[in-house]
Amino acid sequence: MAFTFQINSDVEFIHDEKLLRKAEENRPEIRKEKVLPSRIVEMVSDPSSLNGISVRTSEKEISKLPSYGWKRDDRLILDFGDHRVGSFEMEVDQTGSPMDAPLFLRLKFAEVPAELAAEASDYDGWLSRSWIQEEFIHLDKLPAKVSLPRRYSFRYVELKVIDTSPKWQAVFSNPSVITETSADGSSFTPLRLEDEKMQRIYDVGIKTLADCMQDVFEDGPKRDRRLWLGDLRLQALADYASFDNTALVKRCLYLFAGMTTKEGKISANVFVNPKNIPDDTFLFEYSLFFISVLYDLHQAHPDEELVKELYPTAKKQMDLSLQMFDEEGRLIPDENYPVFVDWSNEFNKDTAGQAEMIYVLKQFLALARIAEEPEMEFYLRKLELISGYAKEKLYRKDRKLFVTGDEEFNIASQVWMVLAGVMSFEENQEIMRTVVREMFPVTGIATPYMYHHIVEALFEAGLVEEAVCLMKNYWGKMIDLGADTFWEAFDPNVPEYSPYGSPIVNSYCHAWSCTPVYLIKKYLVK
Amino acid sequence: MAFTFQINSDVEFIHDEKLLRKAEENRPEIRKEKVLPSRIVEMVSDPSSLNGISVRTSEKEISKLPSYGWKRDDRLILDFGDHRVGSFEMEVDQTGSPMDAPLFLRLKFAEVPAELAAEASDYDGWLSRSWIQEEFIHLDKLPAKVSLPRRYSFRYVELKVIDTSPKWQAVFSNPSVITETSADGSSFTPLRLEDEKMQRIYDVGIKTLADCMQDVFEDGPKRDRRLWLGDLRLQALADYASFDNTALVKRCLYLFAGMTTKEGKISANVFVNPKNIPDDTFLFEYSLFFISVLYDLHQAHPDEELVKELYPTAKKQMDLSLQMFDEEGRLIPDENYPVFVDWSNEFNKDTAGQAEMIYVLKQFLALARIAEEPEMEFYLRKLELISGYAKEKLYRKDRKLFVTGDEEFNIASQVWMVLAGVMSFEENQEIMRTVVREMFPVTGIATPYMYHHIVEALFEAGLVEEAVCLMKNYWGKMIDLGADTFWEAFDPNVPEYSPYGSPIVNSYCHAWSCTPVYLIKKYLVK
Repeated sequence: MAFTFQINSDVEFIHDEKLLRKAEENRPEIRKEKVLPSRIVEMVSDPSSLNGISVRTSEKEISKLPSYGWKRDDRLILDFGDHRVGSFEMEVDQTGSPMDAPLFLRLKFAEVPAELAAEASDYDGWLSRSWIQEEFIHLDKLPAKVSLPRRYSFRYVELKVIDTSPKWQAVFSNPSVITETSADGSSFTPLRLEDEKMQRIYDVGIKTLADCMQDVFEDGPKRDRRLWLGDLRLQALADYASFDNTALVKRCLYLFAGMTTKEGKISANVFVNPKNIPDDTFLFEYSLFFISVLYDLHQAHPDEELVKELYPTAKKQMDLSLQMFDEEGRLIPDENYPVFVDWSNEFNKDTAGQAEMIYVLKQFLALARIAEEPEMEFYLRKLELISGYAKEKLYRKDRKLFVTGDEEFNIASQVWMVLAGVMSFEENQEIMRTVVREMFPVTGIATPYMYHHIVEALFEAGLVEEAVCLMKNYWGKMIDLGADTFWEAFDPNVPEYSPYGSPIVNSYCHAWSCTPVYLIKKYLVK
Repeated sequence: MAFTFQINSDVEFIHDEKLLRKAEENRPEIRKEKVLPSRIVEMVSDPSSLNGISVRTSEKEISKLPSYGWKRDDRLILDFGDHRVGSFEMEVDQTGSPMDAPLFLRLKFAEVPAELAAEASDYDGWLSRSWIQEEFIHLDKLPAKVSLPRRYSFRYVELKVIDTSPKWQAVFSNPSVITETSADGSSFTPLRLEDEKMQRIYDVGIKTLADCMQDVFEDGPKRDRRLWLGDLRLQALADYASFDNTALVKRCLYLFAGMTTKEGKISANVFVNPKNIPDDTFLFEYSLFFISVLYDLHQAHPDEELVKELYPTAKKQMDLSLQMFDEEGRLIPDENYPVFVDWSNEFNKDTAGQAEMIYVLKQFLALARIAEEPEMEFYLRKLELISGYAKEKLYRKDRKLFVTGDEEFNIASQVWMVLAGVMSFEENQEIMRTVVREMFPVTGIATPYMYHHIVEALFEAGLVEEAVCLMKNYWGKMIDLGADTFWEAFDPNVPEYSPYGSPIVNSYCHAWSCTPVYLIKKYLVK
């Protein structure tokens, strides 16, 4: 998720077994379904698709798959019709003379056609090569059933025969995927929208969310596959607007609350395999968003008992972060506890971080009231102080914009200040109009995470048309480029951009991009 | 084994269930033993070793293995102390931050250090790449026990960490191999020889034979791994001189006899995995050697019942091959049923094939007598005719050599004519002296199979010193180059020669090279 690796191996963590037991009690059922490939395809050059690569139906027919023999260097691409998360299996046999050598096979799993065109051996990025979804297997005896033990995220499976022998060919049959998700499609009726493009954006958002809903809300089923707090916040919002799996949100909250540092700080993410492990990465607002997730859950499904149970953890995050503000109410950034806002480190994040604190502090006050916080006054004064600093020191009336750092005016500051509701509705609208006028089209932002907040700020400021337009230009453009699910990273100005230098480690189904599900229901459906 | 692939997919085979049941009854017990690595080593350049590559003990200590962390691109070579055939397992864990990516690992199994220096991706030979002993595995959860399901043939295991993540390192512990063989080391007392070099040659021969003794006499435990009749003949002779596992020889004879073509012809080799399958490759003298193996077995352990049981199969091979001789008694070669003699196709094999027939026909007559063959006269006349043709038309008194093809004088013709005992002992000695004088040092021959026959012909001709000298210069030179077991292919004039273009598909433990075990016991031990 973040570009910079944090290594904090000296941090000591507490495991609160009571809370972790509750996480366990809320563990979801994984629903499985067998899906067969719909066709055999071939890669084709296609300038309108991502990285200029698309597929077309092969002359070889999927129904005749067992009749084809495949020899050294032959390749075959199976299309499973849509994005799938699950395990793969098939039967393998041979034809020709007796099998006088093992079969050596490469299986490559691709979410998008662009991955099919990239070779793992060419990858030299900073992100682990181990994420490349590629397996090499030897089969000494045929016929054999191949049931790969791992879970993959893909639409396409390329089978490449590295070698048989000159005397015989490999034969493949009955390939299938057993899909896995904890999303229950029967639990709600998807929205029907008049606007076709928005309908497609909504549908792909639902698919993205569903494929990220596993044992936890994963950030991406292909890569990372873990629970990030910032991503959880958006997934939970999209979940309430669709599958409404509240238990899964609770499970995730318990996991974070159950594994804090000794001082009480929540990790930016946790692992649940092979056991529950908190990561040693910490992000300022990701810890704070524990409060947001609890607040949002209570908004969606009021649960005062849960709020009271988790309030001490929420309060701890608030108290730790408030220490980062000076007596004027100004955020003093700490590079060991960085403000995230977006992947890009090309802009100053101080004002955005200040706004995020205000955003969360307001939610915290609502929780504090339920928990009958005795020091209510203290937090109210903090809100006043920090908001006051924002209004008085950071807002530039002449520009209708918030400043940050060294006289820098960036989109993140405006968006978060609008979301934090620091100014009046009219002022927010003016700010967002200024943003549209001066900062659109957006540049230098490649995360659906940041685009989500821009769109939400537009909606909150009443600029519905601009919000919809941006959704179509952003999520809609991914669809135009061939997306079955929304991506971890996308800069519409540089569609082929990969933060890792190759599509084969990109995650093309990434939770933080599923938010049209939430935005459409909240802002566009009467 | 042979350089030319035969594809005869239209051949129909018979499965004689009665004989195959006897093959099953003689299936050997596979003995297993756990072996630990003796040290961690590093590759070094060493002009005295095969391909200029050797290993030296690493500064990293095997006893401290679990204390080392291994990151992206790190390599580690385990030395298991001697050639091993079996399965590999180890435990894998990690150190550092939590495991935020899978572990991607390459395991490479090498019989000799030269293989460690070769990269699979550079291999472009005609032999299947699937024989390269290399596995790629992803581990999603650590700690994990890795138990590879396949059998490997190796002394060295290279573990290469393709990737972890920048935040953690892989940790390896408890690597081991469970060796497999059907040879019972307790069944005999190995010879003790005065000559150190010959002792080493004998010991390495025993190890070679033992590692090829599996469910059948395999030709090589790394590659091919099947039962070839020509190799079986030599393995059986070495076996009687050592482990003396007669049941295994019987099993192999029943396998060949139980799966002939409809017309009764025996394949050059059979597979026993996943079930008993005869290969569609046929070689003139490999079929005939069924007779030799039966004859040799009866010589070692007289068993008239077995001879009578398998005599019809033996007779069929003789009858089919006799059809290839004209009325003068001359072999008319058939490219669909080629004479093998050696891998090289650079010399004419007609006279060698003629000699092989005489060699086998004499053995056949011995079996025919036991089986009370009614047509004894017919075969005696055939022997006379074919021998007569050899003596009168092929032997050139002036040269003291046999001619072949178009006035060609090659070593194979002489060696096989001597082994066939066509001429008197004195003439044979003269022939072999001529060979030593005119054709030594041997050139253009790269198989221990052919070298075996040259040495045996020298012994048979009473040229013991020359035979021992050649053994030292051939098998001894493999040992000088670092052999723990004898190789499938070796040309002492071109030590780096590989029939496949790369050491990683060479077989460095190959049955047909184990014959010093037999030669030493038969010709050098009083």
